[in-house]
Amino acid sequence: MSRSVYRFGGGASDGGDGDKALLGGKGANLAEMASIGLPVPPGFTIATPVCAAYYDAGGCIPDRIASELNEGIAHIESVTGKRFGDAADPLLVSVRSGARVSMPGMMDTVLNLGLNDATVAGLAATSGDPRFAWDSYRRFVQMYADVVLGLDHGAFEEALELAKEDKGVHLDTDLDAGDLEALVTRFKALVEEEWGKPFPQGVHDQLRGAIGAVFGSWQSDRAKVYRRLNSIPGEWGTAVNVQAMVFGNMGDTSATGVAFTRDPATGERAYYGEYLINAQGEDVVAGIRTPQYLTKAAREKAGAKAVSMEEALPEVYAELARVFDLLERHYRDMQDIEFTVERGTLWMLQTRSGKRTAKAALRIAVEMADEGLVSEEEAVLRVDPAALDQLLHPTLDPDATREVIAKGLPASPGAASGKAVFDADTAERKAADGEAVILVRVETSPEDIHGMHAAKGILTARGGMTSHAAVVARGMGRPCVSGAGSVSIDYKARTMRVGGKEVSEGDIITLDGATGEVMLGEVPTVQPELVGDFGRLMEMADMARRLRIRTNAETPNDCHTAREFGAEGIGLCRTEHMFFDAARISAVRQMILADDGEGRRAALDKLLPEQRADFAEIFRIMAGLPVTIRLLDPPLHEFLPHQEHEFVEVADAAGVDVATLKRRVSELHEFNPMLGHRGCRLGITYPEIYEMQARAIFEAACDVAAETGDAPIPEVMVPLVATEAELRIIREQIDRTAKAVFAEKGRSIDYLVGTMIELPRAALRAGDIAKQAEFFSFGTNDLTQTALGVSRDDAGRFLTAYVEQGIFARDPFVSIDEDGVGELIRIAADRGRETTPGLKLGICGEHGGDPASIAFCESVGLDYVSASPYRVPIARLAAAQAALRART
Amino acid sequence: MSRSVYRFGGGASDGGDGDKALLGGKGANLAEMASIGLPVPPGFTIATPVCAAYYDAGGCIPDRIASELNEGIAHIESVTGKRFGDAADPLLVSVRSGARVSMPGMMDTVLNLGLNDATVAGLAATSGDPRFAWDSYRRFVQMYADVVLGLDHGAFEEALELAKEDKGVHLDTDLDAGDLEALVTRFKALVEEEWGKPFPQGVHDQLRGAIGAVFGSWQSDRAKVYRRLNSIPGEWGTAVNVQAMVFGNMGDTSATGVAFTRDPATGERAYYGEYLINAQGEDVVAGIRTPQYLTKAAREKAGAKAVSMEEALPEVYAELARVFDLLERHYRDMQDIEFTVERGTLWMLQTRSGKRTAKAALRIAVEMADEGLVSEEEAVLRVDPAALDQLLHPTLDPDATREVIAKGLPASPGAASGKAVFDADTAERKAADGEAVILVRVETSPEDIHGMHAAKGILTARGGMTSHAAVVARGMGRPCVSGAGSVSIDYKARTMRVGGKEVSEGDIITLDGATGEVMLGEVPTVQPELVGDFGRLMEMADMARRLRIRTNAETPNDCHTAREFGAEGIGLCRTEHMFFDAARISAVRQMILADDGEGRRAALDKLLPEQRADFAEIFRIMAGLPVTIRLLDPPLHEFLPHQEHEFVEVADAAGVDVATLKRRVSELHEFNPMLGHRGCRLGITYPEIYEMQARAIFEAACDVAAETGDAPIPEVMVPLVATEAELRIIREQIDRTAKAVFAEKGRSIDYLVGTMIELPRAALRAGDIAKQAEFFSFGTNDLTQTALGVSRDDAGRFLTAYVEQGIFARDPFVSIDEDGVGELIRIAADRGRETTPGLKLGICGEHGGDPASIAFCESVGLDYVSASPYRVPIARLAAAQAALRART
Repeated sequence: MSRSVYRFGGGASDGGDGDKALLGGKGANLAEMASIGLPVPPGFTIATPVCAAYYDAGGCIPDRIASELNEGIAHIESVTGKRFGDAADPLLVSVRSGARVSMPGMMDTVLNLGLNDATVAGLAATSGDPRFAWDSYRRFVQMYADVVLGLDHGAFEEALELAKEDKGVHLDTDLDAGDLEALVTRFKALVEEEWGKPFPQGVHDQLRGAIGAVFGSWQSDRAKVYRRLNSIPGEWGTAVNVQAMVFGNMGDTSATGVAFTRDPATGERAYYGEYLINAQGEDVVAGIRTPQYLTKAAREKAGAKAVSMEEALPEVYAELARVFDLLERHYRDMQDIEFTVERGTLWMLQTRSGKRTAKAALRIAVEMADEGLVSEEEAVLRVDPAALDQLLHPTLDPDATREVIAKGLPASPGAASGKAVFDADTAERKAADGEAVILVRVETSPEDIHGMHAAKGILTARGGMTSHAAVVARGMGRPCVSGAGSVSIDYKARTMRVGGKEVSEGDIITLDGATGEVMLGEVPTVQPELVGDFGRLMEMADMARRLRIRTNAETPNDCHTAREFGAEGIGLCRTEHMFFDAARISAVRQMILADDGEGRRAALDKLLPEQRADFAEIFRIMAGLPVTIRLLDPPLHEFLPHQEHEFVEVADAAGVDVATLKRRVSELHEFNPMLGHRGCRLGITYPEIYEMQARAIFEAACDVAAETGDAPIPEVMVPLVATEAELRIIREQIDRTAKAVFAEKGRSIDYLVGTMIELPRAALRAGDIAKQAEFFSFGTNDLTQTALGVSRDDAGRFLTAYVEQGIFARDPFVSIDEDGVGELIRIAADRGRETTPGLKLGICGEHGGDPASIAFCESVGLDYVSASPYRVPIARLAAAQAALRART
Repeated sequence: MSRSVYRFGGGASDGGDGDKALLGGKGANLAEMASIGLPVPPGFTIATPVCAAYYDAGGCIPDRIASELNEGIAHIESVTGKRFGDAADPLLVSVRSGARVSMPGMMDTVLNLGLNDATVAGLAATSGDPRFAWDSYRRFVQMYADVVLGLDHGAFEEALELAKEDKGVHLDTDLDAGDLEALVTRFKALVEEEWGKPFPQGVHDQLRGAIGAVFGSWQSDRAKVYRRLNSIPGEWGTAVNVQAMVFGNMGDTSATGVAFTRDPATGERAYYGEYLINAQGEDVVAGIRTPQYLTKAAREKAGAKAVSMEEALPEVYAELARVFDLLERHYRDMQDIEFTVERGTLWMLQTRSGKRTAKAALRIAVEMADEGLVSEEEAVLRVDPAALDQLLHPTLDPDATREVIAKGLPASPGAASGKAVFDADTAERKAADGEAVILVRVETSPEDIHGMHAAKGILTARGGMTSHAAVVARGMGRPCVSGAGSVSIDYKARTMRVGGKEVSEGDIITLDGATGEVMLGEVPTVQPELVGDFGRLMEMADMARRLRIRTNAETPNDCHTAREFGAEGIGLCRTEHMFFDAARISAVRQMILADDGEGRRAALDKLLPEQRADFAEIFRIMAGLPVTIRLLDPPLHEFLPHQEHEFVEVADAAGVDVATLKRRVSELHEFNPMLGHRGCRLGITYPEIYEMQARAIFEAACDVAAETGDAPIPEVMVPLVATEAELRIIREQIDRTAKAVFAEKGRSIDYLVGTMIELPRAALRAGDIAKQAEFFSFGTNDLTQTALGVSRDDAGRFLTAYVEQGIFARDPFVSIDEDGVGELIRIAADRGRETTPGLKLGICGEHGGDPASIAFCESVGLDYVSASPYRVPIARLAAAQAALRART
């Protein structure tokens, strides 16, 4: 039988920091603090396995731990010199939960336990403060009745109110010892009325009741919900901490406070905290009295009058400061601390790693590395990559007032204000006139790209976190709020209505892409400062990581941005985005409307110089780095108009009659475009399209090589391959085209040909497909859609319910579904490399910027991930963390 | 060095029937016939490996076989007593190709080889017929020039025409020996002009030239195309057969003919064939003279005058009949034979298993088994399951005239005539009035089901072999022509136009679902006779097979049909089809339009008794057999109207306003419905739907058990599962509902709960999912769509090109893609059975009726396949064949 009770304090420490699973976070930290000699009120922890035993025994504390409990109490008694239940000098204890991870506010606590009709007098005598003693007893009875006996707390609050009314006062503090004594009598009567038995006077009965209540609260509904939402296994159970009470409300040499060892908002290396003289912990939180600054410097900076702890209790403060330093050195992280001063004696009640803003996290990590407190590798592990997102985009001024009119999904971070416009062309036109615009659409499509680019932000009424709008906006670094369901858009009237308010074209609105809020009018924003800490952290991350980080980009602007953020190449250049440009779409449509290969070829000839120029520009910007260019992917109908009013204009521009255009639109209509005539299927059925694109790539590469002397490294990527034969046929065409161009240009360029692995069949047949490929890039968006049979654009209708019910732990379009999609990636990587040992492997879906997915990519041993430009720094950090974690 | 030349004839036989890979089909059969003592003109076969050697040597016959060739010639000389190149009594030979499988007409042949200016005189002398000798020489030079020398054959034909003009005659036969001798001179001059060298007089040179030409024709363009289309590997190569010439044109005791040992049309056990006196093989084929019947009985039956071979050459005929019997007993199959009689001597030139109609195949297999010629198992293997399809449906009278106006895909077999109608309601109304109708639609949707059921046949302008129309029509056993692209339908005018013809509603058209032809007017049909042979074959198949055969059916009619065809249960009952009934669709729409669970529940309460009645009826029909019922699968928008004119009526019926209806239609719209909010996702988000269905199933089962004393065996199937959690949640609900119903009804029924495996993720996670399942049914339609990323409804645009280019060997929606989808099935079967050893495994996609896919299912060890009712017999036979083949 292993032990169940672990002592701490008074020179004894049965546990320590490494025992969180056994003792819970709180218990382990208390034991650890005690073991390094800090002043911790003595106590003991009942280990987590007892929680399961409690339930196994049908909700009873197992008999076998009785003697250990007694030894625990004896330990506290021997350290404090007080005795539990002693009428003269009674020991009072707190009974608190403490799970392996913190579940704030979820579980029960009982304070002042050990008071009864006899010991209250002893407490009055030893404290010299009868009011304090009766108030403590009053609080204890009330808390015990609520938490342990489960009685209706309304009756007790009512009795307290009546007592104040009777006396004609408003505040609890206006009640004196006699009033409180009377109230205790009333409370005990209430307990007997409702519970049917008198309030327990036996202190050991009290203790057993409180311990049982804490264990019982582990299976309360709210605790279960919290665990489900936070993925905490129910079988972990909670520990129970029984600890001697200390009081910060024993006069002017007593105090209570909370502190951080560094500023959790900025990361500055300065103690940061609040305290109250003659108060209990709950008073600091409750806000009845205004807490005072801990340090003189902070008080002065704020221009506050109320004396700081540094000034009021200089000796205790000095000791506290010493403890802060000790704790930071010991835990090697910024600490969040609770303390109480009882009559001049400092007691530590809690320490844990403190929560902090992204900015603070960055600064603290870098400075601690510079201070030598942590290694550079540890510093890298200390910053949450997702939090970096906040630092890279403008944010709303936190002090500004906001008139929030709608809330959608926080689809792409950053904040922006501008005039509402309801179509892409207007967005582009107004933006060209220098106006800031917000593009508002029911949902966006590839035809809106130019408008999205022109806009400062995008708002959609439909679509999820991975809708077209969200994905494109993140790629462009534009803030986006998607799926704001309460917004009703009238394209004809050029207005949107939401909650009775109407916004017309030209009215200014503001989006907060970090919260999903939509506001009326302009809200000031704060620009991010990418200070030196950011660069330092990236340097440290780059030292640690193995994965290369590329970017998904096709515009010069995005390429520049990504390169500045440290991208090491382009992992996905989507050529179709280049086709939507107003100057080109007409030729694209001519191609689609042509009757035969010859007609298509004539139209493609017009596009060739444009594509060549696109690629040349990208090659120049990405000089020295690989550029993966994906050949045309979307189904052709995406390039045709779908609205009645567009037909005439488009037909005119393309030189066909409206009937022909409509017929072609109808012929090309697809029930499931995601699974339709797209990707390499276009390359097989209309070989002239890929031929033009390959030609544009190789001509541009040769031209740039001639111009700069620095040959680009094009990687030609074929999308939606399911069979080796598809890739073989297309690869032969690419190679033929390359040969022809090189002959014409009189020079040759190294290039690779590879494929997306984005269909389950491709993953399974990777061994064959690799015969034709120099690289694979996992298109995890489509691989997720096909492996799970879920259309990203339609998933919103059930995905929320799926995540809520725990069917998916996380949105599989945000973090790779490792069990399903992940297995396909592993299979493809293994089989591909077996055929072609040097096969280059990467990932270019949205997952390329998701830290959890990056960790997965590291575990599979991919060569690179490709993320949208603004997520490149996140990917660099996440890749470093994954590499570091893989080493341990 | 293994041998390259294999002799046959004259008592020698170096090879035999088992040597097809080495000697080709023709060579092996000649050797085999010779070895069993049949009269085969002597010859030898140059084995197939020499073909590769020929190409390796750059298109030369390898020197190393020279001596073997000489030995081969010596063999023929010694048997015939003639000598190759002997001016007095020359040996003439034919040189023919002979690959492992027959490639009719694809490769080259040279006849009469061995003639030259000297030997022609010898042939004239020994035959006593100078004209015959010079005509043979003339033909030889012409054929050699064309085949071996590759000269333009036009010049030779022109010379022949000139010769006839000069003489003023029209027929070749009007030229006498002198004319032909002159023509030979002219031909030789032409050869020298065009080839630059004189026509080869050396007979060994001639032989080497001809052998080289036959090898060379293996890589001709037409041979390559043929091999690609028929999946014949190029590396097989061809053999070359060199054989003594025999002549059927040496007077009235000579003849030539072709014969089958049984009637290839009906299977009747009677010799069947044609012959011509004093003719060569090509004369029978060329149709210049009308061939005569082989037997007296056939001549009399046909009322023909021309004397039969049985009457004209009774002795030779008797020998031929003896040979027929010998060959049938030897090969144990109906033979297709070529023979020549040279001056009263019978020579066998060819034998092979004869092609036959489905009806004949069936009769021959059964009768041969009854005769003891083959075992029952062999008989089962002799009938192509796909051919049975012809026997189960009415077919067009082959003698009737047809006015074909369009051609589409042969989507569902059978033939039907009826009045063209252009919507389902009209189809139903007219059918109720007793009229035969053909439903004509651009494409069909689930809303058309009642019209498809009412119609005699279905014609669509769009959609492939696996479009909605095709799949449903096959399931119902209705003939269907789909994707008739030239048909243009005007729903408003109620007409269709095709090739300048207009068909109005009410005009009669005829469909041939076996050919895809659409005809104007009524074409008489022939009803199938399912004679005793069919039942016998099915009995024999049932003895042999291991796989159980179920059916996909949901209407009482289909259930009856399937049971009659021998279905052993229902593998897929699609409950949504029951929702489209006019009386129910209104309640379904009310459910969809309801604002909350309560509203949905109220609408579902109306559907409950209807569903219960559906299931009760099916349970009664399928008494004693398992019935797998799939819970609602399609996305809800499939039940809502999409056409402007329907909105008012539907809104009225559902008790909502049009705006609400339109809004809901728009809200439910999906970009990729195949990957949308359907299957178990409906069950998770709207649990009341599956609850109603489960209740209907269990109530019906209890009611039928009470009524008949025979409890049904319901298997509740959950569609589109991707995770264990989905199935767990839904299974708990089903179990709860069962428990509640059993308590109410006071009895309980055995039932199973299982899932479709139709998503790649489900296949990979089958080990988990099996924890919640008693059975898996592979939904190979959707599994193919998701694994390959191909929408069945949209695939027509590229799938044809894919099959033509060999990217897919076969349409993956017709035969399982074994490399991709097949691996997923294997993985799922293995992992599922590892978790749950007794897990029942089946397949219920369209593939369940495809013989190749059934063979795959046998190889994976599934428990059953489920096919549409009319394909149940095909599946029974295919399953038997797969089991028999697996044993060897």
